[in-house]
Amino acid sequence: MAAIDTASLFADVEPASSRRLLQAALDAFAARGYRATTTRDIARRAGLSPAGVYVHFGSKADLLGAISRVGHDTILRMSEQAIAQGEDPGDRLSRFVRTFAAWHAAHHGVARVIQYELRELTPAAFEEARERRRRFDEIVQAELRRGNETGVFAVADVAGTALAILSLCIDVARWYGTAPRRSPAAIGDLYADLVLRMVRSGGELDEDA
Amino acid sequence: MAAIDTASLFADVEPASSRRLLQAALDAFAARGYRATTTRDIARRAGLSPAGVYVHFGSKADLLGAISRVGHDTILRMSEQAIAQGEDPGDRLSRFVRTFAAWHAAHHGVARVIQYELRELTPAAFEEARERRRRFDEIVQAELRRGNETGVFAVADVAGTALAILSLCIDVARWYGTAPRRSPAAIGDLYADLVLRMVRSGGELDEDA
Repeated sequence: MAAIDTASLFADVEPASSRRLLQAALDAFAARGYRATTTRDIARRAGLSPAGVYVHFGSKADLLGAISRVGHDTILRMSEQAIAQGEDPGDRLSRFVRTFAAWHAAHHGVARVIQYELRELTPAAFEEARERRRRFDEIVQAELRRGNETGVFAVADVAGTALAILSLCIDVARWYGTAPRRSPAAIGDLYADLVLRMVRSGGELDEDA
Repeated sequence: MAAIDTASLFADVEPASSRRLLQAALDAFAARGYRATTTRDIARRAGLSPAGVYVHFGSKADLLGAISRVGHDTILRMSEQAIAQGEDPGDRLSRFVRTFAAWHAAHHGVARVIQYELRELTPAAFEEARERRRRFDEIVQAELRRGNETGVFAVADVAGTALAILSLCIDVARWYGTAPRRSPAAIGDLYADLVLRMVRSGGELDEDA
């Protein structure tokens, strides 16, 4: 599985040995976790000597940082493209959720490493990741506010609801492949529907309970 | 943080040294991950010799199995109690989500170990965990079907929606403590509201998009 998703993710990385190292590191982190992976494991998977790793990357942490950067940038770019095609807040939010949820299914190997090894990043790489993650939050909050203004959404807690929407989609990476089989696109469609129901006006509850 | 949640979780475990070992193992797994933790780490945290661990638990995997069992049993019992107090499908689902989401916030240390180290369990412990996890799925699916029958819910994809509801709540354990501060109870309330909006009749979308 990881071989498929890393191949497309790192396709632009040159030279080929750097690309191979990123794929090897991702496979190892996904299989064993970051801490339990040694530089030697990564070198072996990439068909290089341990010293060969250091020609391209200063440390295991640098490899994780590069994976995090490429992963975050890829899904951020895809999300921005999806949203740009939408015509109103409902359509834009729906396109975002469809893309973001489907990516976390199709690329669950990368997504797990990015999501669960955040605290292993160096401070600089963590800050970089946090900056990009803030963008996802801003994207969703902006659509929720716009929908509230035009009356199609009725979202009392914009920050909390944006967090819940992102969280719902991100967790697909945890269970994908273990739970009943659905295609990434089918998950994207279902989640877009569930999220629109969550936020649309007319769906508010009558009572407090 | 883990010290608080483990203390209540393992309160009934006897003798005290077993309880201390479970707490130590949970703290170590939460901090470093299961694979990167050694039996020696756990012994040191518990103030025992490595041989002292084996008096109580046959292996590191047995400790993980015991944590998984206690964790799953605790939240399953709480969920069943919460649901039993509800009077109709909306009320029962709401009580379930409130309890299940709040638990994943309040006990995010335990929850992360249980959710992310599942594949490290022995086959027997994994099967045990899977049995309990199926119960959560059954609980939610049963309420969705009941709500569909009485007309208060309009859920076309019961299995997919149940999975999404559980997933939404479980992922609270990943971000809790890093995202904006909310109490577990506040998260439970927000999520109960979002989920009811997701499933209530009248909230269905008019179009396919």
